Formats: sequence, C-alpha cells, structure tokens
Amino acid sequence: MTKIPVGVLGATGMVGQQYLSLLANHPWFEVRYVAASPRSAGKTYKEAAAGRWHHAANPDEAVWDLTVQDANDVSRALDANRRGDCAFVFSALEMGKDEIKALEEAYAAAGIPVVSNASAHRWTDDVPMLIGEVNSSHIDIIPIQRKNRRWDRGFIVVKPNCSVQSYVTPLYALIEAGYEVKRLVVTTLQAVSGAGYPGVASLDILDNTIPYINGEEEKSEQEPLKILGSVSENAIVNAAEPRISAHCNRVPVSDGHSACVSLEFGSRKPSVEEVKKIWSSFRGLPQELQLPTAPGRPIIVREEADRPQAKKDRDADKAMAISAGRIRPCPVLDLRFVGLSHNTVRGAAGGGILNAELLKSRGYI
Amino acid sequence: MTKIPVGVLGATGMVGQQYLSLLANHPWFEVRYVAASPRSAGKTYKEAAAGRWHHAANPDEAVWDLTVQDANDVSRALDANRRGDCAFVFSALEMGKDEIKALEEAYAAAGIPVVSNASAHRWTDDVPMLIGEVNSSHIDIIPIQRKNRRWDRGFIVVKPNCSVQSYVTPLYALIEAGYEVKRLVVTTLQAVSGAGYPGVASLDILDNTIPYINGEEEKSEQEPLKILGSVSENAIVNAAEPRISAHCNRVPVSDGHSACVSLEFGSRKPSVEEVKKIWSSFRGLPQELQLPTAPGRPIIVREEADRPQAKKDRDADKAMAISAGRIRPCPVLDLRFVGLSHNTVRGAAGGGILNAELLKSRGYI
Amino acid sequence: MTKIPVGVLGATGMVGQQYLSLLANHPWFEVRYVAASPRSAGKTYKEAAAGRWHHAANPDEAVWDLTVQDANDVSRALDANRRGDCAFVFSALEMGKDEIKALEEAYAAAGIPVVSNASAHRWTDDVPMLIGEVNSSHIDIIPIQRKNRRWDRGFIVVKPNCSVQSYVTPLYALIEAGYEVKRLVVTTLQAVSGAGYPGVASLDILDNTIPYINGEEEKSEQEPLKILGSVSENAIVNAAEPRISAHCNRVPVSDGHSACVSLEFGSRKPSVEEVKKIWSSFRGLPQELQLPTAPGRPIIVREEADRPQAKKDRDADKAMAISAGRIRPCPVLDLRFVGLSHNTVRGAAGGGILNAELLKSRGYI
Amino acid sequence: MTKIPVGVLGATGMVGQQYLSLLANHPWFEVRYVAASPRSAGKTYKEAAAGRWHHAANPDEAVWDLTVQDANDVSRALDANRRGDCAFVFSALEMGKDEIKALEEAYAAAGIPVVSNASAHRWTDDVPMLIGEVNSSHIDIIPIQRKNRRWDRGFIVVKPNCSVQSYVTPLYALIEAGYEVKRLVVTTLQAVSGAGYPGVASLDILDNTIPYINGEEEKSEQEPLKILGSVSENAIVNAAEPRISAHCNRVPVSDGHSACVSLEFGSRKPSVEEVKKIWSSFRGLPQELQLPTAPGRPIIVREEADRPQAKKDRDADKAMAISAGRIRPCPVLDLRFVGLSHNTVRGAAGGGILNAELLKSRGYI
Repeated sequence: MTKIPVGVLGATGMVGQQYLSLLANHPWFEVRYVAASPRSAGKTYKEAAAGRWHHAANPDEAVWDLTVQDANDVSRALDANRRGDCAFVFSALEMGKDEIKALEEAYAAAGIPVVSNASAHRWTDDVPMLIGEVNSSHIDIIPIQRKNRRWDRGFIVVKPNCSVQSYVTPLYALIEAGYEVKRLVVTTLQAVSGAGYPGVASLDILDNTIPYINGEEEKSEQEPLKILGSVSENAIVNAAEPRISAHCNRVPVSDGHSACVSLEFGSRKPSVEEVKKIWSSFRGLPQELQLPTAPGRPIIVREEADRPQAKKDRDADKAMAISAGRIRPCPVLDLRFVGLSHNTVRGAAGGGILNAELLKSRGYI
Repeated sequence: MTKIPVGVLGATGMVGQQYLSLLANHPWFEVRYVAASPRSAGKTYKEAAAGRWHHAANPDEAVWDLTVQDANDVSRALDANRRGDCAFVFSALEMGKDEIKALEEAYAAAGIPVVSNASAHRWTDDVPMLIGEVNSSHIDIIPIQRKNRRWDRGFIVVKPNCSVQSYVTPLYALIEAGYEVKRLVVTTLQAVSGAGYPGVASLDILDNTIPYINGEEEKSEQEPLKILGSVSENAIVNAAEPRISAHCNRVPVSDGHSACVSLEFGSRKPSVEEVKKIWSSFRGLPQELQLPTAPGRPIIVREEADRPQAKKDRDADKAMAISAGRIRPCPVLDLRFVGLSHNTVRGAAGGGILNAELLKSRGYI
Repeated sequence: MTKIPVGVLGATGMVGQQYLSLLANHPWFEVRYVAASPRSAGKTYKEAAAGRWHHAANPDEAVWDLTVQDANDVSRALDANRRGDCAFVFSALEMGKDEIKALEEAYAAAGIPVVSNASAHRWTDDVPMLIGEVNSSHIDIIPIQRKNRRWDRGFIVVKPNCSVQSYVTPLYALIEAGYEVKRLVVTTLQAVSGAGYPGVASLDILDNTIPYINGEEEKSEQEPLKILGSVSENAIVNAAEPRISAHCNRVPVSDGHSACVSLEFGSRKPSVEEVKKIWSSFRGLPQELQLPTAPGRPIIVREEADRPQAKKDRDADKAMAISAGRIRPCPVLDLRFVGLSHNTVRGAAGGGILNAELLKSRGYI
Repeated sequence: MTKIPVGVLGATGMVGQQYLSLLANHPWFEVRYVAASPRSAGKTYKEAAAGRWHHAANPDEAVWDLTVQDANDVSRALDANRRGDCAFVFSALEMGKDEIKALEEAYAAAGIPVVSNASAHRWTDDVPMLIGEVNSSHIDIIPIQRKNRRWDRGFIVVKPNCSVQSYVTPLYALIEAGYEVKRLVVTTLQAVSGAGYPGVASLDILDNTIPYINGEEEKSEQEPLKILGSVSENAIVNAAEPRISAHCNRVPVSDGHSACVSLEFGSRKPSVEEVKKIWSSFRGLPQELQLPTAPGRPIIVREEADRPQAKKDRDADKAMAISAGRIRPCPVLDLRFVGLSHNTVRGAAGGGILNAELLKSRGYI
C-alpha cells in the first residue's frame, strides 16, 4: 500500500516534533511536507531542529532532509498537494489565536484538510472537536462545514485540550451505559510538557506546584460539553450537562496529566463495581476499526490503591490509553476516581493522528 | 523570666527535630529533656542525631549535649520533672498507635502534661484536638479529662493531621462570620516531609505524583468535625457539618501542603469580596494573647492569580500563617479557593508549640 | 529453537525486576525459575511483587504465575535444573556480601552457572568481571575457576559496578587503538535507581545533590583495573594503569549515570578528532557475534554542545549504548569528555544478560 | 547614623531582586533609586515587579513605591545623586555585554561609583574583580582606574562569576598559608537560579542534568587567575597559576553551586588535617572589619561524610559562608574536596553588597 503523504504545520515546535516522532513508521501516513515560522523556512528540518529536538524517539530518517517551508505560505502546501506530497496537514501551529484561525481556514479553503491540535477553532460551531472513542459521529458535520464555507475538499477538525482527556472518555463511557452525569468537580495535576517549550521556568516549578494555568480551567469546564454534544442541522450543539468545576495545577512532572474527579449522577447511580466493568469493557469506533494508533482498551482500570501514576501509567498502550483508578464512593457527590493520560501523546499529537486515521476510514482523507 | 523546662519525646525523629529546631531561643520554653527509642538512649543528642539531622536551623547548643533517655521509661521523665528539668513534654513519638496511646497516658498519669503531635489520641473523646485560632475553647475539656481518669496534674492535648491545616482555619473563619458550610470537596497536594524520614522513596516521587496517602483521606474528612465540635459535659461532641470529600496526593515538594477546595454554603452565601475580608481580618485567641509563635494574621489572602505556592508561601510569618488565594465562585458548589500551610511547622511542631503557649497562658502549664 | 530456561535470584528486588522485564520475549532465554527471600517464598510472583513492581514494562505473562522459591535453598534450584527449568541463574541477590558470596558458590558447586550482578565476587581473583565489549577474553578463566574449586559445570561470572560503565568502554577503546591512558579524574552524577529500592529518601534528594555514595568511589577507582587486566595462569591480574580519582555524586535523576572525565595519555596523544573516530568505529565481540542484547554501536558520539544527557540519551539503542560527548582538550590533563550509560540496563540487568549471551555463544551455557 | 542612599540597576531582574531583598534593613545602605529597562520605567516598583518577584523575603516597604527609572538614562541617576538619593549603584544589568560595558562606564564617568555583578568589565585590566576575603588589596587599583579614565569620583568594581566562589576562597586560604597550588580539576553542579529568569526550561532539567553551561567553563578557569593576581603600576596582573580544568553541569537544584575539586600542590603539600585547620581558622578583611554582610567564618569545614549539600548548607551564615567537606587525598593529583556556596547570595548580590561595605570602610563610598 502506498502511504498517504502528510504535512505538519508548526513542525519545529513541541507538538510538531511529537507528530514527527509518532508518525515514524506509521503504516498509513508518511511525512513529506514540513512547515514552520519564516525563521526556519529554507533550512533542512535537521538544521531547523538543531538543539531543539526534545524526544528520545526520532522521525523517519527522510524527514531530517526535508526543506522547511513557511507555514504562512499556503501556496507552497498547495504545490506540494498537487505534486502528491501533502494530502492533508496536521496543524500544530504556535501563533496568536486569530492568526491560527485564519491560516487554518486558508489551508482548508485551498483544498487541504486540516487536522488541528490548536485551540483556535475549538469553538467554531461547525468544526468538530473529536475524541475518537467519544464523538466520532461529529465527523458528520464536515459536509455541513464545507457547505457553509463553500469548500470542496478541505475541512477543519480539531481535538480538545490535553487536560480533559483523562476524564471525558470515562465520563462518556458512563453516559453511554445509561447513567446521567450531572455535576463534576475535578482537580488536575498537569505535566510541564503541556506548556510547550520553553514553557514553565525551572525556578518556578522545582520543589513547587503552581495552582494556576492560564485559560486551562475554562477549557476543562467547557470543552466536554461540546464533545458530549450532538450534530444538529448546521452546527454542533453543546450538551447541557454535566456542570464542571475545574482546579488546574502545574506539577513538576515531565509528561502525564492526572485528574482527581468527584462526580454526581442523576437518579440512577452505578455501583463501584459496575463502573469498573463499564470502563474495562468500553470500546469505541477506533477499537472497532482497529485503527493503527488506537489503544486496545481506551480505559485501563487499575486496582492498586496508589495508581494511576504519571510515571508508571502514562505510557500505557502506546501512551494512548487512559488509566483510571481509586474508584470509590464520594461522600459529597456520588463517585470518585483518578484519571490519567499522556498529555503530548493521547492529549496532543497521538490524539490528532487517531483523528486522521478515523477520517481516512470514513473516506474524508 | 525563668524559662519553663520542657521535654521532647521522639526527639530524634523528623518532627522531634523540628520541635528542637523551633524551640531554639524560645522566649518561654527551654528543652532540657530529650527521649527517643532504646536504641538512642544513653547517647548524647549529638551522637544520636549524627547523620540524621534534617534541618538547616539548629537546636539550642545545650541540647546537643543532653543525654537521650528511653522514651518508654516514664520514671526518667518523672525524675527530670521532680528536679525541675521537665515541666511537660511534647510528644513526637513514632511507634504503633496503641503503644503511643498507652505511653502518652502513662506520662499524663505520672503528672506530666503531654502536648502531642501523634494521631493516637485524636479520637479519644475527652482529649482536645487543638488549632489555636479555631477551638481554643476545647481546652475546657481538660478538667473533665483529669476527672475521668483521676489524673491530678497531667493531661493530654493533641493537634490534628497536617493535611487539614490549610482549609480548617479558613473554614472556621467563615463559620464564625455566620456562614454555614454544608459540604466540601478538597484535593490536597502534599509535601514529602509529611511522610517522615526516610518516608517516600525518591524513585517513587521524582517526575511523578502519587494519588494516595495511606489513611490521609479519612483524617482529612473526619478530623475537622471534631475540631469544629463543642465541649459537652463529658466529651467533645463532633460538629454535624460540613460533609467532606478528600482526594490526597503526594507531590515532589519538600515542604508545604496545598489544598484545592470547593465548598457549599447554607442559604446565606458570602461574596468573594466578603470572604477575602473575613479571612484578612480574622484573628484568634493566639493573636489576641500575642503568643510568641502565633502569626500576626492567621490567614494571609493572596491576590495574585497563581498564588499561594508551596515554595513562595510556606514560610509566611514564621511558617505559621495559612495562605489562601484563587478565591472565586465554584460552578458546582459555591466557592473555590486554594489554601497552603507549612506541614512540619504550622502542621506539626509549630502547631504543637502554639498549643503549649496557649495552655500556659490559660494556666495549665 | 527451544529457549534456554533461566532462573533469577533476588527476583523481587529492583535489579531482579529489571531482569524479568528485559528478559520478556528474549529470543534465547526464558525465565522459568524465580527465587527471593524466605518472606516471598511460596507466593506466586504476582503476589510477591504486588505493590513493588517498579517498571512500565512487564515480564513474560507466565512469570507472574511462577511460585517464588527461597533463594537460600539451592536444592530447589537443583530440582528445577534437573527437570529442565533452570539451566543457569542470574543473581541479583540483595543480602550481606559474605552471604551472597557463599550462596553464589553453593549454586555453582551444585552445577548451576551464576551470572551475577552482585559485588560479592568482583574481587575473587578467578572470577571474571565482564563488560562484553571490553574483556570477553576473561571468560578463559572459567576452566581455571572450575579446576581451582573442583566444580564441573557450575561457575561464577560477575559484572562491574554501574558507575564505571560510562567511562571504561571509552577508555578501553582508546587503549585498544594504541593509546596508553595513565591517569583519570572522574566526577559522576548518578541516578537514584542505582541505590535500589527504597534507596534514597526523597527528602534527601529533592532540590539537592549529595556528594557521597558509600563505597562507590573505591569501586569506581579499582574495578576498571581488573576489567583492563589479563588472564594469567591462575587468576586475573590487574592492569597497572590508569590511576583513577573518582568523585561520586547522587543527583535527582531517575535513571542514567553521567561521568565528567579528564584523562591523561602516555607519550602518544590522540587528537579530539581521532578520539571521535576511534569511539564511533569501535566494535566488540558482542557486535561481531550480533548478540541479541548488544547495541549496534557500543559508543555513540554526540556532537551537540550539551549532550549526552540522562533524560535524552539513557535509552539509546535499547539502553545498552554508552553515549559520549563534549570531547575536548583538558587544560590540566590531556582530554575531557562526558560519558553516560543507563545504570539499571547497561549498568545492571542488561549488562548481565549480555554476559550470559556471550557465555552461551562461547559454549559455557 | 544616616544610611547611605543606593541605587540598583536592573532592579526587576533576578539578581536585582536579590539585591533589594538582601538590602532590606541593611544597617548602612538604603535603596532609594531603582532602574530597569524602558519597559518598566515610569511604573512603581510594585507594578513593575508584579508577577515576577521570586523571593520569599521582601525589600524594604518603601521600595515598592519607588518609581522605576530607565537604566539607560544616566541623567536620572545623576539627578538622584545630586538630591542625595543615590550615592552609588549596584549594577545587575541584563543586556548585551558591550552595552553594559558602555553604560557602567557612563555612570562612573558621571561620578557615580558602580559595584557590578555583571561580567562585562571582569577582564578590563584596571577594574578589580573582588572577593572580599581574597583580594581586597585590589581596591588599590581604583585611583589608577580613575586616573586612566579621568574620572573624579566614579569607578567600577566587579565581582566574579557565581561558579568560582565555592573553590577560590578555599584555594586562596591554602596559598596564603604558604602552599602553592599548581593545577586543579573542578566539576561543578550548578543550581538553576544561576541562569536567571526564566532561565532553564523545566522540560530540560526535570529528571535530568545538563553537562554544559554556555561560557561557564571559560569563566571558571580564567577568573581565578585575575582574582589571585596582583596590582601593578597600571593594571591587575594575572597570577600564573593554578592551571584549571572545569566541567560545568546544570542540575535540578534551586540554589547552591557545588564543586568537586582535585588539586595539585607544589613541592610543599599540606596534610588533610592541616587543610582543615587552615580553612577553619581562615579570616579575611571583611571579618577583621566585622562588615555587616561578612560571614563569621568565610569557610565552614564539614566533617560529615556526605556534606556539604546544596539544600542543607547553602544558607550557612546568611548564605555568605562557603562550606567545604569531603577533604581527602586525591590518587591522581594531591587533594580532593567538595565546596559549596549560595550562588545568588554569596555568588551574586550578597557578594556585591560585601564589596560595597568593603569600599565604604576603605573610604571609596
């Protein structure tokens, strides 16, 4: 099988690098186009990434020799598209929100699908915010999106913030099993890689935790409602529930976001054992389709008293599985648990690649 | 003024050392008796603490030369008491709970007051669990305790677990101001010094957080109810509220416990501004009496978006003040905030010393 | 091909676990016998390791169900040996040095070869201390060892301390290329996993480094001389050079020992470029034989100004390659460089497995 | 006594803040003038430092309300000087080296003495690079400096790099006692605060050490030669010895630089006991004059096997004392030891304040 040629926008940044690293030896996709800021444009990727490559794992050898293009110059991507080097792009752009919004639209308008990691279009109401196992049905908004904007082949899909991955899928699995979730208090302990690079200063975080991440609580409270929403005629309509209160902390951990969750059900309340059973047996469309990047089980239930832990569980099943443990009753709401996901894999590039695999299997790529 | 001679039980342990360090140059108390396990007995304190002294600050010079006594041998303390070297003891014993319980009772029965840091007697119903600014009135149980047990001069008082300090005083200040607190969800981020020494293995906590501390959630949920309770005829009767749900995490921080709190009021609900005002102006008996170890303001309100932080705020006002910040509405319950206290000072030895100062000012020592 | 059945002594400890984890899916060896302290004996491995398994990677599924034997009871291993479940053992025993010495001899005397990670027999003069790429010729001492001790099939080989791996192979490569190394000053920055579990207390190492590791400087200075020595009639005779001065530090790093080295050559002195060439092209017997655990290149030369680093380079080539960088002249001696190796893989279990592969290829196993 | 009014240039930076914090309640000096980049100019210091104040300790209350001036505008400082608000300045400027050089000269030319922390003028041959206890005699170059440059009241003095403090004073004490030091190999383990703010990215240093700090090895090797040099007719002439080889590492420690040192003496070689005696009894001019910021003993000898350590020893004697331990023979050179100093106090602002106190006592301020 010939691989589908893909581009990565923002290829020299933290998430861009993670894309290149995870796409090495990918069975379906092959990176043939890389773009970044004008500062990097014209250099080989090897030169542009010199002294900035953060991963132990490397991209495909051929990527080092690709010439970095200016991400602002859509015409270069279009040329690549036409000569068969860029069927679609992963966007890991790092710029102002409005610039990203306009630029991603320009790619889509030019006929190049955009699978984005950026937050710019998360609240655009005809853009789906996908978690493969939760709301793959939101892909159905794409024809509407194209019609709204008169795009023929291009479109934009986004993924949610890294902080929500560790509780939205468990939440959804409960809802899918027939239990309403009304309210939720979540406290996150988030890794420094979530802040990009250079990100958090070591002086601020060594021997410390920081009880604030700019904009993170809002995202953690609101994004789940869109993800759990439904496709109406012209837009995705948010779910009305659950009401969420998020306390977001930065902690001195390299990778892996933890979430301590207390939640309240509607009148039907599952037992702890039922919850474990629901989560252990939960499977989504990516599992059904056996997508290359899909974890075997989206949620791994840990029975140990002190798990999940970032260091021990972040890499579970290619760092794509969510680990959930400490499942127990809550004296204030109904149920408590701790969720954990790898923020730069499941919560960023890995999640984006899974979205692309899903789009391919549905014929959009 | 002649200083009151005091003893420290468990003097070589983590909290014992903190007592010695904080009592250096204390205006009222002077350490003249140290006791520890039989293994250390007979050595000078300097010898016994060799290679195990964890603090930058030192005890009074004379302490290094004290001969360590066997803490199990109450008769040695009684001799010291009679010759004027041990008017009362701070207990930082590290043994089985039942052994501590019996041993502290033996000291009290022998006529030596025990100001304890241990958890053994926290749920003994005629033993007060004191936070100076909150429930100094519980000292009134001492005559009842003595009568119950036919002790003449001895008695036992304890202090609560280090995890509750960062939210109980703020909670109490609100209650004192007339606002009922019905329910509370709290997630703690606790420093490794809270686990004693050697405590948490570095392999477990470097680049990691651990979502479990044995017994800590139960203490964090239940102890506030006794602290907020009242003295009845024979015992301290627990408060009925608030209902508390605690998620306790260990984090790679040396000192300083943080708490992310969501709370629900009764029908009267203060505004964020009122809460700030209540906390900033809150003063307790230790402040009124200007006790040497009392912080000027028990609660310091931080206005910065990202405070309090363990590293920057744990040492506030001799590490005895609680810092509270991020005071904001909660979408699920009513109010959110982050509290922080120094776990081995305010939450352990410093809190014990403040209790002793209070007892002295009330004539019990 | 039928796999060779192996036993692991000390299977529940830190290094024992690393053996089990690295032997998962090994092409030649299969763990069929596990032994530990009497405390664990009789439990399944799963039970014995509950709450103590430190690795993200797991052993072969079948290992979880093996019954743990008492490591002190050689007769159980002999039974296993006879029924074809234990052709030889990896020793990761954690006991007193004399006990390990005697116990390893008892296994060997019973006819079970011992490939040891322990330090007990490192200075036994007919026991080889092997680094596959450096002194595989020391295997020739085995027939002498057997004769000295009247053992028929059994024998003991050991591997050196984890601290020396990052500089002995680079050193040897230079010597092999014809350059005498006369003197060497080395400062190590060693990971906490080198101290086993629970090992270093988090309170001691968070926000700190410790300039002392008990016994480590002696090992770091003396072991290279035996490794670089030669087999004489009855024993391994130490090399006379280089003279080594070691400063050993513990640092808050999970895995990966770094070494800052200044060294002095004899009259012939290679240029920096020659050193890089020698190291890049260096290959040993494990590479020649293409042993399963051998890294492709034993020494990876890094050209970046700030490499090697523990976090980025410890896992190079299955964590079996040594990374060397910052190769530059030394104003006091002749040459400086920084070496790095993974202390629990290359420096412990991985090194032991490579030794066993070498012994198999030479017909001793 | 009226306090001397001082200015701080670069007052919002990391070292500038450390100056303000250490000058709180200083018995001789009082901060009355603060200057920083044009971006901060015109704001109160409180506004300019909002969200950037890194210290637990605060400046004098009055400092918060000072208006920040543009550090490039010497005329503002001159106005302040004339109205009695700025007798001299501490320079903690953070700009390009050439700009700092020119700007410090402009202040001096305008008649305002500059006590600098910057590296710009360290190699200007009529500018003394002072460590109070080592080369206070270099102050004698000031009249020559003034004459060379036709300055009347102004002058410039600098202090050396933070990395050299932990070994230069011990070195000097040995030289002063009559022992030549010929060669020295030093490996440093340096705290992140040495890189300023934001400085080292947390992703780079969590669970890692970095074997490279740009420019640091050169400074560590060369600056001691100027410090140990002597004042000739027109310039400071470098010492010829010792030859130094430095390996500089960044480690995940907040504050405190450690140095592992091997050194070689001339023909006379002191015993370990003599070295301890020399260091313990060493006193310099700051001690003789009992300067406010001078530590009682410049070098504290630690006898414990595992000291000095950053976390336990950095704050010794107001963080101004150097701690030295692990004094033992070196198998390659002659003597080994570990030195430690607080890099932002002794190694930066505290060292600068001590220099100013010395200059005042010698009549230059």
